[in-house]
Amino acid sequence: MPNKNIPYKTYLDEKELPTQWYNLRADMINKPAPLLNPATLEPMKAEELEEVFCKELVQQELDDTTRFFDIPEEILKFYKMYRPSPLVRAYFLEEKLGTPAKIYYKFEGNNTSGSHKLNSSIAQAYYAKKQGLKGVTTETGAGQWGTALSMACSYFDLDCKVYMVKVSYEQKPFRREVMRTYGASVTPSPSMDTEIGKKINAEHPGTTGSLGCAISEAVEVAVKNDGYRYVLGSVLNQVLLHQSVIGLETKAALDKLGEKADIIIGCAGGGSNLGGLIAPFMGEKLKGEADYQIIAVEPQSCPSLTRGKYAYDFCDTGAICPLAKMYTLGSDYIPAPNHAGGLRYHGMSSTLSQLYDDGLMEARTATQLDVFAAAEEFARVEGILPAPESSHAIKVAIDEALKCKETGEEKTIVFGLTGTGYFDMVAYEKFHDGEMENYLPSDEEIAKSLSKLPKVD
Amino acid sequence: MPNKNIPYKTYLDEKELPTQWYNLRADMINKPAPLLNPATLEPMKAEELEEVFCKELVQQELDDTTRFFDIPEEILKFYKMYRPSPLVRAYFLEEKLGTPAKIYYKFEGNNTSGSHKLNSSIAQAYYAKKQGLKGVTTETGAGQWGTALSMACSYFDLDCKVYMVKVSYEQKPFRREVMRTYGASVTPSPSMDTEIGKKINAEHPGTTGSLGCAISEAVEVAVKNDGYRYVLGSVLNQVLLHQSVIGLETKAALDKLGEKADIIIGCAGGGSNLGGLIAPFMGEKLKGEADYQIIAVEPQSCPSLTRGKYAYDFCDTGAICPLAKMYTLGSDYIPAPNHAGGLRYHGMSSTLSQLYDDGLMEARTATQLDVFAAAEEFARVEGILPAPESSHAIKVAIDEALKCKETGEEKTIVFGLTGTGYFDMVAYEKFHDGEMENYLPSDEEIAKSLSKLPKVD
Repeated sequence: MPNKNIPYKTYLDEKELPTQWYNLRADMINKPAPLLNPATLEPMKAEELEEVFCKELVQQELDDTTRFFDIPEEILKFYKMYRPSPLVRAYFLEEKLGTPAKIYYKFEGNNTSGSHKLNSSIAQAYYAKKQGLKGVTTETGAGQWGTALSMACSYFDLDCKVYMVKVSYEQKPFRREVMRTYGASVTPSPSMDTEIGKKINAEHPGTTGSLGCAISEAVEVAVKNDGYRYVLGSVLNQVLLHQSVIGLETKAALDKLGEKADIIIGCAGGGSNLGGLIAPFMGEKLKGEADYQIIAVEPQSCPSLTRGKYAYDFCDTGAICPLAKMYTLGSDYIPAPNHAGGLRYHGMSSTLSQLYDDGLMEARTATQLDVFAAAEEFARVEGILPAPESSHAIKVAIDEALKCKETGEEKTIVFGLTGTGYFDMVAYEKFHDGEMENYLPSDEEIAKSLSKLPKVD
Repeated sequence: MPNKNIPYKTYLDEKELPTQWYNLRADMINKPAPLLNPATLEPMKAEELEEVFCKELVQQELDDTTRFFDIPEEILKFYKMYRPSPLVRAYFLEEKLGTPAKIYYKFEGNNTSGSHKLNSSIAQAYYAKKQGLKGVTTETGAGQWGTALSMACSYFDLDCKVYMVKVSYEQKPFRREVMRTYGASVTPSPSMDTEIGKKINAEHPGTTGSLGCAISEAVEVAVKNDGYRYVLGSVLNQVLLHQSVIGLETKAALDKLGEKADIIIGCAGGGSNLGGLIAPFMGEKLKGEADYQIIAVEPQSCPSLTRGKYAYDFCDTGAICPLAKMYTLGSDYIPAPNHAGGLRYHGMSSTLSQLYDDGLMEARTATQLDVFAAAEEFARVEGILPAPESSHAIKVAIDEALKCKETGEEKTIVFGLTGTGYFDMVAYEKFHDGEMENYLPSDEEIAKSLSKLPKVD
């Protein structure tokens, strides 16, 4: 144990919990590009966005100058139900690897939603309630976001309609059942409840759905029903704002321990976890107060940062959402059915896309087999069975720790352990049985879906 | 919020973690009755027990005078991976119930085994390793003990052979898969690997197994294989000793907060959680230093304390284990297939049986439907999806809090939340779909299995 003064787990006191979210955009020199109206190609106005999203969330979405937003009292209270989350010193993993590096992870899985998603779902449900809405609609793939939203809606007594990608609905009945426990209605997507669902079912009989299609359905239902709005668990600026609580707690705990991170690693699908984890660190980097190596890890089969294009694209299959400028593989891109459902999105948050484009962070891909091998190695020594999504960060953290072993450097590595894999045992089973495969998309495949990007000057 | 100084969650510092287990038997005036050799009806000697169990564990099993046992350094280190567990003030539940009572729960589910079982499995694996064994065998029903043991064996690089009740093996493939992730071999019981398994399969073709039968198989394999011993996750004195860490932490946290419990509630199957939770409180009660109302809660369908007989009985179906004096429904008793697998055991730990017989604690039953209604109510306000086993304690805690609402008493209620229900979603689904039933065993049914108790003077 290199430093006996550092405990295995560091919990902030409840009094030390962040009381404000940090809006990284306020410190960005190059701001993320605005959302565009797909019809006019003009930046979306607040009143247009308010047809789909809750009012105050729209303000958060559009505000790139206010540095801090107060976390409302009701949300702080809910946060105390499962926060602070622990910053764990991975002594066991360090010992196993024989590395001189210090490894820390911020563990967001100690709540029934099983992930960090609750940080934003409770905020979004709060603003919906405050606006006097009846309920909210959303989509879910792996089910973590849907679960988190159903918990938040149950707390504020809001109706919650979840469109769950059909293949997940069928493969993950337990996730569905957790959402029902929290009173949500869960519909397999594409359904026959919506125009877009009917259209997709007619065009692709027997389809098992996609995230992009479920988004279109959820938006349609929100727009057509009085007293409903649509909420989204990733990609958006507002989500990254709420998730900044992860990074703020991480930074506060490291400061308390007298530690400084050298490398910060997070998995990246739409960017909700990574954007939240790195926020205060990236803020210091932007202001020249400190330097950090920041690494986004994405699946080999869905490499938006590493092989996508930085361009305006549709966020959903039905093309009814605003256009966002992001690193994208094209909204037609169908990722191989890998087992990290939370990372199977064709685009990356505009904020992270801009930071990446400005060279402020790196990106790497990891193969599915490497990810599960890292997951199992981690589980056996650290005692937590990680989600496949989170295990992308574990893989690269191990890589970096092993580099330190070679060079003898005592770097401090911090990664985000976003959630647990208790509902992903089918994937672990395939891995154990040798039935899991890697999937490397061809250049042609990516070029083909990129060829259909909308034309925006 | 009745007292703003009390946080939602209280974590002890790592420095405040107990460094000794508390052996409640040392303070019992009427000691629990000794295990008997089923052939001679003489108390089991250490050397006889050592054929089945690890040496140091046998010493712990037989020692009813040593008050404290040092927790070995290696175990303390492992404990720090997931302990201290939080003592949670159930502000949300209190608010929902509108009770003047203060409700606390000790949450043991924040680890991948999903329950308190890890507290004893790591101890048992440690002593097995210390003895130079190759591995251990065990049985598991719901799968929590098997998972906890597989994690502990993985940590100490011990082989782990789990006999899993066939019906659970088939209904809970995810539990099985978690055990495999930790490198355990999992065999459905009754199997064709053992004499007793072959016998039971021949006598009851197509049987889906029972805990008593799986115990017999695991013991047989341990005895017949060099370098193996059998380990058990409940009932035994040694297990209650290890689980005292739950109660010691709870007591330390309450003391730190300046709180005194009035009522302490735990679910009771074999007694591992309840025995651990109440240990230091019962110790004070025995010494006349304080008084507490202590309530064991068992399923209506498996009521060993409330409707069983205090007598010597077999611990397993194959009748190859020592005889234990306990409140029992008879080792032939087959509990209805309720969804609290961890509470479906015909007998109760000798220690708890003696305390109950001496009038030092109460026992109540709860119906399955009431338990799941309490579970769902709890999940919706406290954000944790509880295990069906733990929900028995929730049910009675709610009952007691509602009594306080009627009387206006500000009692302090503490209950054990032993684990999470993430692998029990089939049960929750039945509950949601209205397909769950209660089961009240008839007097005749219980009398019939009790008529087969072994004759011991």
